[in-house]
Amino acid sequence: MIREVIVTTLHADGAPHIAPMGIHTRDDLIVIAPFRPSATLDNLEREGHAAVNMTDDVMIFAGCLTGRRDWPVTATEKFNGVRLAGALAHIEVEIVRVEENDKRPEFYCRKLLEQNHAPFQGMNRAQAAVLEAAILASRLDMLPAEKIDSEIEYLKIAIDKTAGENERTAWGWLMDRIATHRRRLREGHGA
Amino acid sequence: MIREVIVTTLHADGAPHIAPMGIHTRDDLIVIAPFRPSATLDNLEREGHAAVNMTDDVMIFAGCLTGRRDWPVTATEKFNGVRLAGALAHIEVEIVRVEENDKRPEFYCRKLLEQNHAPFQGMNRAQAAVLEAAILASRLDMLPAEKIDSEIEYLKIAIDKTAGENERTAWGWLMDRIATHRRRLREGHGA
Repeated sequence: MIREVIVTTLHADGAPHIAPMGIHTRDDLIVIAPFRPSATLDNLEREGHAAVNMTDDVMIFAGCLTGRRDWPVTATEKFNGVRLAGALAHIEVEIVRVEENDKRPEFYCRKLLEQNHAPFQGMNRAQAAVLEAAILASRLDMLPAEKIDSEIEYLKIAIDKTAGENERTAWGWLMDRIATHRRRLREGHGA
Repeated sequence: MIREVIVTTLHADGAPHIAPMGIHTRDDLIVIAPFRPSATLDNLEREGHAAVNMTDDVMIFAGCLTGRRDWPVTATEKFNGVRLAGALAHIEVEIVRVEENDKRPEFYCRKLLEQNHAPFQGMNRAQAAVLEAAILASRLDMLPAEKIDSEIEYLKIAIDKTAGENERTAWGWLMDRIATHRRRLREGHGA
């Protein structure tokens, strides 16, 4: 089972790095598998720790994909690091094993601390639609325009019916990214 | 913004009633708008209270739609009622105003108690897909078969890639319901 979370790590200069990621668990360990190359990968290798943040604030997922990586963080308790200040829950982890891989090395992580900060407010169809649109928007070079258009049209139904302010803002960022990508293609700048 | 939750009420004989519902808030009040006729509507009118349960256990959403309404409950604190035992969080409410409507009366509810039981584990694409499939499965009489098939095909991608055991089970229940509906149509029993 893949859960979509926000992984927070520290860069070499101590600045926070915030990245959406799909994680799974195996034998009570959390498995984080960032693509190579990526800042999260470098940070995990160097720091040996991370915070796994559970949130349904889809502005953070869509924001990280559209150049908006500056979200409020606060210090972790068990190591020198940061977590999302607005997370509903977070887990602080320590890397205990790495399975090397050319594309996506797997970092097996032991839980050091798990905290429940705020109550889950219930599922929301628009949040899920933003997440799906974010995945589409991250694969614009690989997908035909017609497929993107038809999926966006389908996902927009849930936005129109169930979104709040955050979901509409996140959706707008993603639609802007798709439009910008297409304008560049037309103007011959490539992706 | 519409949140998908499980509303628990009591029948006249004191038996629990468990129903998925989309709620929204207005001026700090939670608005529950059950269709007429429905057991939740009758129970809200008679009891004046309900529990609003936040859960990402999509077996409950798909189960209630496919005749599996027997989920573990526990007593509420602020009134004679029940809440979902496995809820991540729940809110106990009292009805303060009813806006009558022929189709969907609106019950405006004041929060009496809000409890956070377990940490949110992160978003999951398969859970969202089950919820969308549940909505399709509840509208089989109104939607063309081709539309249902194409949406199910799309939603199944997230099931195959990200589902856990609960999501696969819930998905199976919904697919069974769609298949049964079609068999009955072919056999001329209507819906």
